[in-house]
Formats: sequence, structure tokens, C-alpha cells
Amino acid sequence: MNLEANNLTTNKKILVLGGDGFCGWPTSLHLSNLGHDVVIIDNLSRRNIDNELEASSLTPIQPMGTRLSAWEEVSGNRIGFHNINIAQDYELFLQVIMDEQPDVIVHFAEQRSAPYSMKSSKNKRYTVNNNMNATNNVLCAMIDSGLDIHLVHLGTMGVYGYGTAGMKIPEGYLDVEVKTEEGERIQQQILYPTNPGSVYHMTKSQDQLLFQYYNKNDGLRITDLHQGIVWGTNTKETKMDERLINRFDYDGDYGTVLNRFLMQAAVGHPITVHGTGGQTRAFINIQDTVRCIELAIENAPIHGDKVMIFNQMTETHRVRDLANLISKLTGAEVANVDNPRKEAAENELHVKNDLFLSKGLKPITLDEGLLQEVTKVAEKYAHRADHAKIPATSTWTKEQKPGVPEQVKNNAQPELAK
Amino acid sequence: MNLEANNLTTNKKILVLGGDGFCGWPTSLHLSNLGHDVVIIDNLSRRNIDNELEASSLTPIQPMGTRLSAWEEVSGNRIGFHNINIAQDYELFLQVIMDEQPDVIVHFAEQRSAPYSMKSSKNKRYTVNNNMNATNNVLCAMIDSGLDIHLVHLGTMGVYGYGTAGMKIPEGYLDVEVKTEEGERIQQQILYPTNPGSVYHMTKSQDQLLFQYYNKNDGLRITDLHQGIVWGTNTKETKMDERLINRFDYDGDYGTVLNRFLMQAAVGHPITVHGTGGQTRAFINIQDTVRCIELAIENAPIHGDKVMIFNQMTETHRVRDLANLISKLTGAEVANVDNPRKEAAENELHVKNDLFLSKGLKPITLDEGLLQEVTKVAEKYAHRADHAKIPATSTWTKEQKPGVPEQVKNNAQPELAK
Ligand SMILES: NC(=O)c1ccc[n+]([C@@H]2O[C@H](COP(=O)([O-])OP(=O)(O)OC[C@H]3O[C@@H](n4cnc5c(N)ncnc54)[C@H](O)[C@@H]3O)[C@@H](O)[C@H]2O)c1
Ligand SMILES: NC(=O)c1ccc[n+]([C@@H]2O[C@H](COP(=O)([O-])OP(=O)(O)OC[C@H]3O[C@@H](n4cnc5c(N)ncnc54)[C@H](O)[C@@H]3O)[C@@H](O)[C@H]2O)c1
Repeated sequence: MNLEANNLTTNKKILVLGGDGFCGWPTSLHLSNLGHDVVIIDNLSRRNIDNELEASSLTPIQPMGTRLSAWEEVSGNRIGFHNINIAQDYELFLQVIMDEQPDVIVHFAEQRSAPYSMKSSKNKRYTVNNNMNATNNVLCAMIDSGLDIHLVHLGTMGVYGYGTAGMKIPEGYLDVEVKTEEGERIQQQILYPTNPGSVYHMTKSQDQLLFQYYNKNDGLRITDLHQGIVWGTNTKETKMDERLINRFDYDGDYGTVLNRFLMQAAVGHPITVHGTGGQTRAFINIQDTVRCIELAIENAPIHGDKVMIFNQMTETHRVRDLANLISKLTGAEVANVDNPRKEAAENELHVKNDLFLSKGLKPITLDEGLLQEVTKVAEKYAHRADHAKIPATSTWTKEQKPGVPEQVKNNAQPELAK
Repeated sequence: MNLEANNLTTNKKILVLGGDGFCGWPTSLHLSNLGHDVVIIDNLSRRNIDNELEASSLTPIQPMGTRLSAWEEVSGNRIGFHNINIAQDYELFLQVIMDEQPDVIVHFAEQRSAPYSMKSSKNKRYTVNNNMNATNNVLCAMIDSGLDIHLVHLGTMGVYGYGTAGMKIPEGYLDVEVKTEEGERIQQQILYPTNPGSVYHMTKSQDQLLFQYYNKNDGLRITDLHQGIVWGTNTKETKMDERLINRFDYDGDYGTVLNRFLMQAAVGHPITVHGTGGQTRAFINIQDTVRCIELAIENAPIHGDKVMIFNQMTETHRVRDLANLISKLTGAEVANVDNPRKEAAENELHVKNDLFLSKGLKPITLDEGLLQEVTKVAEKYAHRADHAKIPATSTWTKEQKPGVPEQVKNNAQPELAK
């Protein structure tokens, strides 16, 4: 923790939408620990999706009531909580804003799994409906409240698409040159043209259009964080008490690639690499996620600024390199399985993240120690894992096959019976 | 009518979503008259909005039942009808698709008024919710049906934004050049970066992302028509019987600019020009709209094609020039009122429409005769007009003022009492 920076921070009233989730919970604790007055809004839809998928966090996350009283015990700080569906219950949501008068809203409250968004047309429709109405409602409520609120939204690196002809991906905006009929060259800065890889990622591209519009028409102050894949589980605050433990998704739909690999290694499941594993992805550790939100809040846009876009990632890796690294560390075997997604087999990825570095982010990068630490969390709770939930079974089209390793296909029954 | 082209057309089963609306109704009749088998889906939300706004079509449009039996009487053709909310009743909608097995779906079914979309946060939220779910449901249903359907969607010229540094607006895609860190120049074709002018136009930009995504992932065949402002009322078919008459919106929310001017002139209301009237807009006559849909259906994309985008407009005009033209024709006075919209006071607009011209469109352009014809429709039904509904009262932000002329402000009561 950078204590100097903390002292500079003036205390703010912050609403965290989706504050029960994997990123939202540690962010809420981090901001509360910095002295901000935090209020969480969450409809617990993520926990309900666990019920639907018959999967659950590998770590034993506690109900919100327990979480909040544990935090008060440990830190002396109170965090407020409202169970509201921000995509549906607009009047209730607006009322909370009027009552709480937030300076900042941090918006995590969307359906965030690409595989879940592709499972069936019901899931596609849920994702579009939930995410579009959630974001539009946040923006409408900011206007209706008449308050001068700074919105910090979690977007994804995935909106850029993967595979930009060797070009370094800029932070949100792209300088282009177009030619008129007369051959005149015009320079223009545009929103980076998106090429989303799933319905989930597509909704984040649509979010960008909402932000652009309301920023232009109503002068709303908005920061959009294009986040890489988050890895790790706990942060300084969630480690303070077992009851504060963070969510660890390991199932084929919600588990993100690096955490899934670490968990697979820990429970003795083959490391499942989709296709050749030639996909390059951007990553960030959960501790840096919470720090980036802090920095985004400290560096708010002022009136008249366009939407601020930061790339919230610290390093890029090729998926098969990660698999091999973890295999080397743990002795786990690597299994190349069918890629259930529709994407290029191999891609390069070069990303700018100068903005956060310039604001003081000191990136935590993948190191063996940290990987081991996550593996230890996974080992500790390995008995809670349902191995049948590990393979990625959601496919992008009817023609594609789930990513189930041969070993597991053959042993599926015995493993299920465990 | 180009009879040769008609003979070439093979008969198709066509679902017209939003077939009770201003564009959808004459399109349904036109396609039915060409020999296609037409089925309309509409939830009559546009008629319900008339109830809400206490406004109604200047022309006495008939209920769907009367419309359809009149059409059968006149033409001998049956058109089917289902009252379904395609944004909400997914299962019903999918069932109709399975039953009807359409070759083509023409999708008009969205909330299409920019002023209505800006009236209040409720209207913003309705527009986003209705339009996003409608379009996403259409795409999901196409996939779920397993049928090979061609989708023709009505988009708007408004997605481009108005004011592109003298550049001619291309048809959907833009060739750009970007520079890498190393100074290498890369050519790329991108979706034209949008700059929508209202929440309604923003939803059409979001629609484009849906089309791009499902075209890429599922190979859906999609034509997106970026339509200009439609003027005129009746087409060859709607003139065949008084009961087939088309909708004529004249109120401040749904009335489109040229039709509003013609109607204002006809009823002796000042022609209300927003601001300086320096806005340049693209226009198309309703008869050309229906012809363009016919051409889009005949020129369907094949598998593997990207989304086909046509600019569906035939001419551009500056708003104040239109006002002066109509004033000259009719003697009506022009009133410059506050611009309730947030937009540039003056803009140039140059638009390519080569694709439709190359497919055989012979544009009907603004001519005095046609203008007179529309004025006659307006005069005929002038007694049905509620003058209080004429000014544009929806504003883009709280700071802006409605577009009410002084003359009307002063006489508001007597006029209302008429
Ligand atoms: N986890 C990652 O690797 C990652 C990477 C890039 C971006 N992001 C983005 O960060 C944000 C948070 O991700 P996460 O991993 O914490 O996801 P998560 O699913 O764990 O958390 C999202 C939270 O939002 C809540 N929520 C969803 N819809 C809601 C609604 N309509 N009303 C109220 N609450 C609602 C859920 O109950 C959940 O607690 C998401 O927007 C996601 O797209 C995450
Ligand atoms: N009129 C114009 O000048 C113009 C210009 C450019 C583009 N467009 C586009 O053309 C399309 C048609 O425009 P219009 O002028 O005929 O509008 P309209 O409002 O007269 O017609 C739209 C029809 O769709 C129906 N509808 C809306 N939501 C629905 C839902 N969820 N389920 C079922 N039916 C639903 C309405 O009841 C209505 O009959 C729109 O998408 C519009 O954006 C129109």
C-alpha cells in the first residue's frame, strides 16, 4: 500500500455496484480501508447463477451479512448494503442514490462470463438485457439525481478484439487518417473500433456507446477501465479474516484462465488448454485491480473531459506458456482440448498501459511465489471442488465441441461419484 | 413500378416486424402486391404511445383488422398478423418463426423517435430496453430456428453523426490508415465510427454491434439500411382504398421534419425551424423506402458476406431551405424557435448512396408537385389536428428550451380550445 497516496485521498462516499462479486468485494474492502464511506449494491445474481450451474466458489464465501459484520469487527468500518437489481428496480436504485449522495459510483454489476453468455439463446438474451439496462440505468440515475457523480466502470480488454496486425493497442482511442474524394487526408481520433469475441464482450462495446453519448449530451464524468483477465484470490483486506475470503471461480463458465490452471494443478486435474493455446491475453492481479480503482477515483475527469479510458492490465501471456509454467511448477499434466470458442488459434497482443503507470501503479507481475500462494488456496479448498464442473462445456456455436480432456471423458463417472 | 424487376422476383415468405408502423405498413402492402407472402408482427406500441402522448395520426388510420380485410378485398391477397412484443415475448415470437418458416425478416420494430427517446429518463430507458432486446431477440430467434433467414433491418443515417469535415459519408464502412509505433502504416476497413445525436440514434449504433457480432460468430445474413428522414404519406398501394391510408405523424415527437412543415403550412401554423435551421439532413420519399426494401430483399448477402450496409436516402437538404421552399409554395410564415436538441447549429452533409442506385433505384426527389400532394393530404385532414401537439416540447437536457413559437406561446389557450 502506498500510504502517502492514501493520506492525500479525501474521504468520499462511494457506491459499489456489484460489490458482492469477485472484483467488487475486495474493492469495497480496499476503499473502506482507505477511509472512504462505502455502500454496496448487489442483487446476488452471481450467487444465484452458482445455484443454476450447480457450481460454487472453491473458497467458502460467506453471506453478505456475515461478510459485513466481520469487516466491522476487524476494521471498525461499516459498509452499507442494498439488495437491488439495478437493471430492473430503477426507482429503488435512484432512491438509494438520493439517500446516499455518492461522490463516486464504481460499476461492476454486469453478467461477466463470456462462456455463460454463449451457453444458449436464453443466456445471450439475459446478458444483453441485464448489462444494457444496468449501465443505462446507472447513467439515467446519475442525471436524474442532479448530483455531480464520477462513474468508474469496469470494461474489458476483450472489446478491442485480439489480433491487431502487430499494432500496440492504445488506451481507448485510436488516431486514424482518412482520405476524402479529393485525396485530402484528414486526421481524426476515434473510439477504438471494437471486435468483441462473445456476446458478453459485445455488451461491453455497447456500454462504450452509452458512455460516449451521455458524456457528450449531459457532460457526465466517466472513467472506463478496460481490464485484463484477473488472477489471484485474496487481497490485503480479504486476508484479514477467514470470513472475508474472496470468491474463487474454477468452473468452466466463470473460472478465468490462469486461476483455472492453478486450481486444476492443485486438485490433480489435467490443465485444459483450448486448441493450441496460442491465444495471447492480458492479465492483472486482483491486488492491482483494487489499487487501479483507487487510482481511477483519485484521478477523476473534470467537467468537459471526454470519457477517460485506461487499460487496466499489467502483462500479456500466451495461454500455452502459462500452462507450461504451471505444469513445471506443480508437475501437473497439460491436456490440449477442443476450443469451444470461435476465435483465431494464435494471436499477438501488445497493449499500452501508460496511464495507470503514470498515476503510480507498481505492477505485481506473475511470479512463482505468488502463483504458489494461489495454488495453496486452491489446495486448501480442493475438497470442495466438483471435478465435473471443471471442463468448459459452453460452446460458441452448435458446431463446436466442449473442451473436455480425454482423460476426463473416460473417467467422468468415477470422478462425479467422488 | 418496375414490372420487369417484379417478374424476376421469386415469391418469398416475409415476416414484417413493426408492420403496423409508418414505414412497415406500406412496405407490407408493397411486398404483398409483388406476390410475396407477408406476415406482420407488431405489438401496436406505436398506437399506444399515441394514447400516452394524447396525439394521433393526422390521417385516420384503421385498426389492423380493418386494414387487412380491406387489403384482401382490394388485392385478393391475405396478410397474416400476430400481436407480439418481440422484445419481451421471445417464445411466442420464435414459435411464429417456426410456424411461418420465413425466407426474409424485415425489422422495423423499434421505438424510432429521437425526441420521444429524450423526453425523460423513463423514455430513455424504454427506448434502450425495447430496441436492444428487440434486435437481440430477432438475432437469437434466427439462430434458434435453424432456418437460413435473411434479415433486413432499418437503421438510420443518424448513426453517422452530422458534421464530418467535408468527407462524403460512405456506406457503413470506412477505410482508415493507422500508424504503428515503428511508423509503419496499416490500412484497415472499419465500421464507420458513430456519433449518434440522441438515445434513439445511440440504440441504432448499438444494433450495428449486434449485427457485426452475430454475422461473425453465426454467419447470419444481414442487410442494415441506414435510412434518411422519410417524407410523404401514401404509396401506390395505400392509395388504393381509404381504409389502407398510411400514418401521418405531425406532433412534436413523432412528426419528421419535412412532413411537419407541410402539415404546419396546411393548417396555418407557423413553420417551426429549430435554431438557425442550418442542419443538413438526408431525405427519402416513402415510395422509395418501400422500393428500397424490395431491392434489399432481391440483393441478399450470401453466406460468408459481412453485414451489407446501404445508405437509404436520395437527397440532402438544409432545414431552413426546406422551410423557405414550403413557405414560398404555401405562403406560410417561418418561425425560428429555440432548438430543443443538442447539436451543431450548422452542418454539411454529403452522403454516398451508390449501392441502391446500382441496384436500380430511380430516386423520387423533392418536387413541387409531390410536396403539393402531401400538403393536400394534410389539408384534407387538417380538422383532425390538435395544434397544441405541434411544437417540439421534448428537450435534450434540462437546460434546453422547447421549440415553441412566440405566436403560439401567446395564443396557446385559444388554439387549444378550438
Ligand atoms: N474477473 C475478471 O477477470 C474480469 C476481467 C475484465 C473485466 N471484468 C469486469 O469486472 C466486473 C466485475 O467482474 P467480477 O469478476 O467481479 O464478476 P462477478 O460476477 O463476480 O461480480 C459481478 C457482481 O455484480 C452483481 N450483479 C450483476 N448484475 C446485477 C444487477 N443487475 N443488479 C445488481 N447487481 C448485479 C452480481 O451479483 C455480482 O456480485 C464485470 O463488469 C466484469 O465484466 C472482470
Ligand atoms: N420514419 C422515418 O423517417 C425513419 C427514418 C430512418 C429510420 N427509420 C426506421 O425505420 C423503422 C420504422 O420506422 P417508422 O417510422 O415506421 O416507425 P413507427 O413507430 O411508425 O413503426 C414502428 C412499428 O414497430 C412497432 N414496434 C415497436 N416496438 C415493438 C416491439 N417490441 N414488438 C413489436 N412491435 C414493435 C410499433 O408498434 C410500430 O408499429 C424504425 O426502426 C426507424 O428507426 C425511420
